[in-house]
Amino acid sequence: MDYRGREKKLAERLRAARLDACLVTHLPNIRYLCGFTGSAGVLAVAGSKLAFFTDGRYTTQARAEVKGARVVVGKRAALTEALAWLKRQRVRRLGFEAEHVPFALYRHLSGEAGKMRLVPMPGVIERLRMIKEREEVEQIRAAILLASGLFDHLLNTIKPGVKESDVAAELEHAARRDGAEGMSFETIVASGLRSALPHGRASAQPIQKNGFVILDFGVILAGYCSDMTRTIYVGAPGKRPTELYRAVLDAQLAAIASVSPGKTVGEVDQAARFRLQKAGLGRYFTHSTGHGVGLEIHEPPRVAKGQAEPLEPGMVITVEPGVYLPDEGGVRIEDVVVVTQNGCEVLTPTTKELIALE
Amino acid sequence: MDYRGREKKLAERLRAARLDACLVTHLPNIRYLCGFTGSAGVLAVAGSKLAFFTDGRYTTQARAEVKGARVVVGKRAALTEALAWLKRQRVRRLGFEAEHVPFALYRHLSGEAGKMRLVPMPGVIERLRMIKEREEVEQIRAAILLASGLFDHLLNTIKPGVKESDVAAELEHAARRDGAEGMSFETIVASGLRSALPHGRASAQPIQKNGFVILDFGVILAGYCSDMTRTIYVGAPGKRPTELYRAVLDAQLAAIASVSPGKTVGEVDQAARFRLQKAGLGRYFTHSTGHGVGLEIHEPPRVAKGQAEPLEPGMVITVEPGVYLPDEGGVRIEDVVVVTQNGCEVLTPTTKELIALE
Repeated sequence: MDYRGREKKLAERLRAARLDACLVTHLPNIRYLCGFTGSAGVLAVAGSKLAFFTDGRYTTQARAEVKGARVVVGKRAALTEALAWLKRQRVRRLGFEAEHVPFALYRHLSGEAGKMRLVPMPGVIERLRMIKEREEVEQIRAAILLASGLFDHLLNTIKPGVKESDVAAELEHAARRDGAEGMSFETIVASGLRSALPHGRASAQPIQKNGFVILDFGVILAGYCSDMTRTIYVGAPGKRPTELYRAVLDAQLAAIASVSPGKTVGEVDQAARFRLQKAGLGRYFTHSTGHGVGLEIHEPPRVAKGQAEPLEPGMVITVEPGVYLPDEGGVRIEDVVVVTQNGCEVLTPTTKELIALE
Repeated sequence: MDYRGREKKLAERLRAARLDACLVTHLPNIRYLCGFTGSAGVLAVAGSKLAFFTDGRYTTQARAEVKGARVVVGKRAALTEALAWLKRQRVRRLGFEAEHVPFALYRHLSGEAGKMRLVPMPGVIERLRMIKEREEVEQIRAAILLASGLFDHLLNTIKPGVKESDVAAELEHAARRDGAEGMSFETIVASGLRSALPHGRASAQPIQKNGFVILDFGVILAGYCSDMTRTIYVGAPGKRPTELYRAVLDAQLAAIASVSPGKTVGEVDQAARFRLQKAGLGRYFTHSTGHGVGLEIHEPPRVAKGQAEPLEPGMVITVEPGVYLPDEGGVRIEDVVVVTQNGCEVLTPTTKELIALE
């Protein structure tokens, strides 16, 4: 991972915003900038000087992991130590992560900041993270391959009468066994009419014959998240389920075909939305088309209606249109793609043909 | 669950703070007040009137779950709809959750609030949640029994050569199978010298002979968290490991014995700390003695040095002293207790005798 390059880019952004320094408190941003994977610490960046502050529980881990920053385990709280260090660097304008710092913490910082002026710095590090390095793309690909490698095993566990939660349990067990650090979000197994719930966490409901099952899951590997959705049919799908599935797949393929540098994320959303509208299903597509994925399962850009963010090579996004009909069930199909110089590469290798388990 | 009682208590607190209303954005607090378990929504409370705002993905779920509040799925963002509703209630002073609302969201709210004045309201709902209802204690007990029921199974998976992460995988699989909704935090399996890391998430390291293994895990059941730690020894423990274990157990029992209404949480911490200091191990006890547990795995009160919060019947806290010696390993023992009229009841039934797996 190119920590030095990231630090350099951040220093440029700070200069452009006339900030002498910034305080990084959001853990994925700390990990991105200096490699620390623990759950308590603060990174202070003053020009090209970086210092990472944590407490006694993380001394050993921080020394082993942190790159390009001094590790400080002081007697006082990490935040207090960080502010003292920033004062010693004669910082006047101090950026802070306005989207992550709770109001109460902001007030506390204001009280301790002395002559330093706190300046909201929204999304600056997230914007750096939007464009992935080659090594990051490979980590995401590895997470995706691990997850998609579980799909066949997953299919074997789905039978009428089996609880959704047991399907999720089998999947998560296999993921751990294959080396996943954990799941990147709560596994969704939504069967029958529950497939019409876009966020149908695995429940104790047994899977029934003649209905869709939406499977939406992801793993974490070396800190990076995967995300995939497939919808299968239990029983022999009739004409209507086949039509619904085909419409969503068409929309998903159209959205993928629209991904290329220079286009906006809003245009990708529009590509999917337009197809579903033409199929008379527009009003059943109740969410946005996708989101960035990386160290967090949801990160910028939002691939949503009207969003003007231009696509750039190195962005990694999900493409996941879906339709949800209260009395019929739902279908969602999701891949992860990386934007390339000319278009995109689909990282998810799993088939998108409609699978019917009889 | 006594939603009506909770709403009444909140209304009293709002009156005492001269607030006309409050905006609840922290999901566990929303769940506590109206029962919604999904992951997007805002609750507005104006005196005895409650309205819950969410988006189209959660319409069905909100209607099924929400108690004592109107469910509104509007055309605009949930927050915008909530503010419009609050304005219609002629609210002047509006409390918000200062510890959970990020600074950027606060600024956005300020911009949309019109004549309403935003007033930080730190920890008000958390303070209500600190005292558990009988039904809540029973839910926590059920989660604890599920988790402790897995302990024997867990012991069977621990053998020299088995990876820590495989032990965690087996545990999590069994938890799901027994009906857990998920784990309440990342399972800790820390063996050998890694047991000296207080936060040793299960790694790919194989368990070795002659060393401690710290097992710290919890499940979620009906939204409530369990939390337990046991430390076992692989091999025949010699004199020194036995002494370390005995010292931590003495400290843990002393802390439990000190729990009773009227005492402060700081005194519970002190009881454990004093014993470990007398055993010459004070400086290896690098964290606090415990924390509240309920809808969140960490919630008030903090059972830590110098904290003046008085214990009250119905509080549910962990008691978990530990020592961590870089060259020898670590020991931690943790139970959950509920404060009663005269003392406390230990909810964790698992033995605390030192278990040696030979």
